[in-house]
Amino acid sequence: MIDLRSDTVTKPTEAMRKAMLEAEVGDDVYREDPTVNRLEELAAEILGKEAALFVTSGTQGNQIAVLTYTRPGDEVILEAESHIFYYEAGAVSALAGVQTRTLSGPKGQMPIEAIREAIRGNDIHLPRTAMIGLENTHNRAGGAVLPLHYMKQVYQLAQAHQIPVHLDGARLWNAAVALGVDVKAITQYTDTVQVCLSKGLSAPVGSILAGPKPWIEEARKWRKRLGGGMRQAGVIAAPGIIALTDMMNRLADDHRRAKALATGLAQIKGLNVDPDSVETNIVMVDVSPWGVSAQHVLALLKERHHIFGNAFGPFLIRLMTHRHISDQDIEKTVDAFLQISRNVK
Amino acid sequence: MIDLRSDTVTKPTEAMRKAMLEAEVGDDVYREDPTVNRLEELAAEILGKEAALFVTSGTQGNQIAVLTYTRPGDEVILEAESHIFYYEAGAVSALAGVQTRTLSGPKGQMPIEAIREAIRGNDIHLPRTAMIGLENTHNRAGGAVLPLHYMKQVYQLAQAHQIPVHLDGARLWNAAVALGVDVKAITQYTDTVQVCLSKGLSAPVGSILAGPKPWIEEARKWRKRLGGGMRQAGVIAAPGIIALTDMMNRLADDHRRAKALATGLAQIKGLNVDPDSVETNIVMVDVSPWGVSAQHVLALLKERHHIFGNAFGPFLIRLMTHRHISDQDIEKTVDAFLQISRNVK
Amino acid sequence: MIDLRSDTVTKPTEAMRKAMLEAEVGDDVYREDPTVNRLEELAAEILGKEAALFVTSGTQGNQIAVLTYTRPGDEVILEAESHIFYYEAGAVSALAGVQTRTLSGPKGQMPIEAIREAIRGNDIHLPRTAMIGLENTHNRAGGAVLPLHYMKQVYQLAQAHQIPVHLDGARLWNAAVALGVDVKAITQYTDTVQVCLSKGLSAPVGSILAGPKPWIEEARKWRKRLGGGMRQAGVIAAPGIIALTDMMNRLADDHRRAKALATGLAQIKGLNVDPDSVETNIVMVDVSPWGVSAQHVLALLKERHHIFGNAFGPFLIRLMTHRHISDQDIEKTVDAFLQISRNVK
Amino acid sequence: MIDLRSDTVTKPTEAMRKAMLEAEVGDDVYREDPTVNRLEELAAEILGKEAALFVTSGTQGNQIAVLTYTRPGDEVILEAESHIFYYEAGAVSALAGVQTRTLSGPKGQMPIEAIREAIRGNDIHLPRTAMIGLENTHNRAGGAVLPLHYMKQVYQLAQAHQIPVHLDGARLWNAAVALGVDVKAITQYTDTVQVCLSKGLSAPVGSILAGPKPWIEEARKWRKRLGGGMRQAGVIAAPGIIALTDMMNRLADDHRRAKALATGLAQIKGLNVDPDSVETNIVMVDVSPWGVSAQHVLALLKERHHIFGNAFGPFLIRLMTHRHISDQDIEKTVDAFLQISRNVK
Repeated sequence: MIDLRSDTVTKPTEAMRKAMLEAEVGDDVYREDPTVNRLEELAAEILGKEAALFVTSGTQGNQIAVLTYTRPGDEVILEAESHIFYYEAGAVSALAGVQTRTLSGPKGQMPIEAIREAIRGNDIHLPRTAMIGLENTHNRAGGAVLPLHYMKQVYQLAQAHQIPVHLDGARLWNAAVALGVDVKAITQYTDTVQVCLSKGLSAPVGSILAGPKPWIEEARKWRKRLGGGMRQAGVIAAPGIIALTDMMNRLADDHRRAKALATGLAQIKGLNVDPDSVETNIVMVDVSPWGVSAQHVLALLKERHHIFGNAFGPFLIRLMTHRHISDQDIEKTVDAFLQISRNVK
Repeated sequence: MIDLRSDTVTKPTEAMRKAMLEAEVGDDVYREDPTVNRLEELAAEILGKEAALFVTSGTQGNQIAVLTYTRPGDEVILEAESHIFYYEAGAVSALAGVQTRTLSGPKGQMPIEAIREAIRGNDIHLPRTAMIGLENTHNRAGGAVLPLHYMKQVYQLAQAHQIPVHLDGARLWNAAVALGVDVKAITQYTDTVQVCLSKGLSAPVGSILAGPKPWIEEARKWRKRLGGGMRQAGVIAAPGIIALTDMMNRLADDHRRAKALATGLAQIKGLNVDPDSVETNIVMVDVSPWGVSAQHVLALLKERHHIFGNAFGPFLIRLMTHRHISDQDIEKTVDAFLQISRNVK
Repeated sequence: MIDLRSDTVTKPTEAMRKAMLEAEVGDDVYREDPTVNRLEELAAEILGKEAALFVTSGTQGNQIAVLTYTRPGDEVILEAESHIFYYEAGAVSALAGVQTRTLSGPKGQMPIEAIREAIRGNDIHLPRTAMIGLENTHNRAGGAVLPLHYMKQVYQLAQAHQIPVHLDGARLWNAAVALGVDVKAITQYTDTVQVCLSKGLSAPVGSILAGPKPWIEEARKWRKRLGGGMRQAGVIAAPGIIALTDMMNRLADDHRRAKALATGLAQIKGLNVDPDSVETNIVMVDVSPWGVSAQHVLALLKERHHIFGNAFGPFLIRLMTHRHISDQDIEKTVDAFLQISRNVK
Repeated sequence: MIDLRSDTVTKPTEAMRKAMLEAEVGDDVYREDPTVNRLEELAAEILGKEAALFVTSGTQGNQIAVLTYTRPGDEVILEAESHIFYYEAGAVSALAGVQTRTLSGPKGQMPIEAIREAIRGNDIHLPRTAMIGLENTHNRAGGAVLPLHYMKQVYQLAQAHQIPVHLDGARLWNAAVALGVDVKAITQYTDTVQVCLSKGLSAPVGSILAGPKPWIEEARKWRKRLGGGMRQAGVIAAPGIIALTDMMNRLADDHRRAKALATGLAQIKGLNVDPDSVETNIVMVDVSPWGVSAQHVLALLKERHHIFGNAFGPFLIRLMTHRHISDQDIEKTVDAFLQISRNVK
């Protein structure tokens, strides 16, 4: 089985398993779990923020950010296909009561002018613009990396209007590797950031929310309300520490393989794939020229080749590389598409 | 003073004043106000719906509709510049906890294909699509009228997905007059509708929310929660009855004057006005070729000519005709713009 | 028909009707309705607060107060049978997302010690105590008046904890008349107050929310979100001005009649009525010694005597005096109960 | 150090650690984690419900229950010192928008008659009663067990009104052990139940929410919105399976030790402790006769004896036994109180 559905399927490494076995733990609601405390300090340092909070998922980190920044009647500016808006089941409005102002942009980049125009003035008819959200890398934009100069521009615009910027950095590590910079070069342009320890880094569970110390204290209370306050959470924080210290370098391999996959698929007649657009570990494959649906192709891949991907639209397939995908898997996948191409035509 | 800011500034007629003086009243929370009851029955009949509810504003009618149709975690599809999304201070998310999925379209018309794609599937990551909202006439689209075939298409699509359609018909009467049809020809393509008794119809206060009988019963409870349950409301329902019976025909005059205003302004050098786009009582004037801001032009209009309009963007002015605007006022306004044109250049 | 269900059934006076006919009006969303502005200034002055806001109902005033003071995750302390908690259809939690901490007390007075203990400390498990609500007179406590020294004690306790006090003064005028003081003697012990212009004062529609100027500005935006922003609202503000200036003195008559009613009923065998507890215009009648339900007695009163009251529990009837209840009506009502007493036994 | 603050401080057993090391995992958002699936099936079976859901905390389980049962404008009936109301930071209103109707009762038992009266009728002023919550054992009532006949009565009353019952069974296992019954003997009287795998059972993280299958499907989506959807959650589900299979029997020891502790403390002059009220693993110690605060006594216990407890009021101390508390610890604790008693007097 070659599972290209998502990097979320990665399993913990042996070192992570061992760390769970040995982790020193305590009651984290009392803030006495030394492993959680160590993870939070380490994460804050790596991300260049004052403080950090261990949460159970990227969704939880994002939701807590919005809950902490806003109150009902506020509006948040989000990219139209961002995870917070698109994939969190409407939670941002259900929980925080905020309205979503969505702006579309190429490669996950809302145009600066569009953001400027979307910031609300002071009028009784208008909500208050309370947060600007960015996503880097951008999932639905095919793992696109937000350039540093773009992030800087957004941040400066936001600061000029005293609006905080939150970064959904579920795959921030991939962005840093792709840009060849320290993550702090990216996070300097955001007030708060959520990063995942699972996905490419392979921890079994958990994300980090980082930002100013008093803000994180408020966030901690919202985590409690969402039921994210755990007890001996050190057992899952321990693999998170390994994720942060040992796993980042391996992401370059995922990127190389995604590029190879895209390059291979691009040579198959009728497949619409752009290798140049593959910046990280995501490959988007448009099968519309074949005249069959993404679901149909996925079914063939699964039944005949034990290869799994995700539909991202009627004719769009998303494939994602990660720790369990080898060079050989890439070759097999290209070959499988090639075989299917002979049948569908 | 020539007040072209909005048709909301219209004052009650003498007949309306007299109706207030004489209205038979009772306690409407007990549903014993005969005048309110009569208004609600009349409005339901005119709108071709089972039942109707008197509310204090268009915003309240829209908010109650969303509160009645949805629960937190749902998503509603709205045009990107619709009143519900743009001008109700984020209430739709603050009160109902629903996420706003906004789609842009020319003349207030979200493309049918875009709506189809925006309807969410059944997946744990996705909110439920719980309502499609339309606005007819569309305020920020310059009073544009949604064509009947467009409304029909949206309604059929919505029905195929079992999603209710709510129509913000704050200026529905203008749409009916412009289309030359009975309002029921429009409301047949919507499950529920909100219409204003103020604005062009000149009642001092109030709107109507109409729809199926059990739905209106639920809406009534949400009205109570919002504090819209009033006591001897017959005193304001009485002018509403006159608005519904005697005032609709006069809207053609507003439309004719708006067209005349646009035609006059279009002849002024440097003013960007399209008379063909004026379908009802709203005229959008783009002053950008003059190289001055809308605010600047509005200030000159006010100070030198006692003419009032609203800024709709950095260079866009909205002018609206209504019962207090005469043919002479139109001429004076064109003349005022002409005089200003000589100065700004 | 003798309608003792509530003082909300009072109809506008002739002077109020005339004021509606002649009221100078404007668009209140633009804050240009001179009559609304005058009412708000007058109300602020009478209530001893910086600013006031005209709202469509007592419920709306109370809801806006809570929305303005709190954010989700907060807790408000309320008397267990207060209107905000008991009769506003759960709106306080539905709209503002706040938790209700209810404390029971005799005559609508939550014990001071109970309030002190209910104020939450600073702990991650606990909501923030964001408001203390009082109700004066207290409806479900039979129109009981909160003594000035009690209000002072609550206010001082609240101030010591920097918690604002909101007063639901739907029948504040009755309290002032009963205490023989200016309303400001009461409102000095509250940060914000809602008072009704309908009920005993007989205006057809509307209430006032008063408090500090910047707070009222925020409240104004919440009113807009609830759909309480009206246009030519001067037509209903005009009778409100009369309510505030001419109607307060007549409340003493309602109180006198309520006392007479209670005294009369207390002499009927088997009726549990305490004339000493009648402080204002509400009489609570316990029919349990008769061994029949309140509903049964109300049905007899209605069918045989055209007298109307409200059930307040299985065996409790609430009767309320107001402008349309005469001395003769009181006699007839006592007589009706007497006749019924002969049948039920 | 003798940590009597809470049974939440229990650390995972060696067997649990080993289970984490070896757990077979998958992506639980795709429902492919075999260990999570096994835990959920096992828990459903033990609890006698159709389906179960693994959540990260008792708070999360309770919150999801309320979110799934209710919509804003509803009311839930809760004991006045229940965990959902008292210790979840107002989340129930913040997230679900429901109003809390709290009723006090001895030993955590809301009087049946009080519940019956609290159920709301059908009236426009009233919220809908959408859930009755019970807590067994009841934390703030000193670990009191709800008798089976009480639970049955509540359940029958609720069913008669078609209102669902949710049981906060954070310490349900303690109740079952104290009653000497299978947990199903308790859960037969509740529609849904939340039970903790941590606390006395010693799993590091996690709780179970169980109920009807379609209800659990809805609950799963709310879990996603709260960010409780995790990836390779098998690593924490594995110790949960051990908690459910191997740890229940040991709770009798905790109960025996709590009783011994209470008996010992009751003999110390001036300490107000009732051994008869100790039904499970919680001991409440009233130090008010000593004339010093709970905080003072706790400070002395900590500094001089390395013994830790929690303040539950100005003069009330809560002590809780669990896996890390030995018979010797009980003796030492009694002795420590004895020594302190000599000083404080």
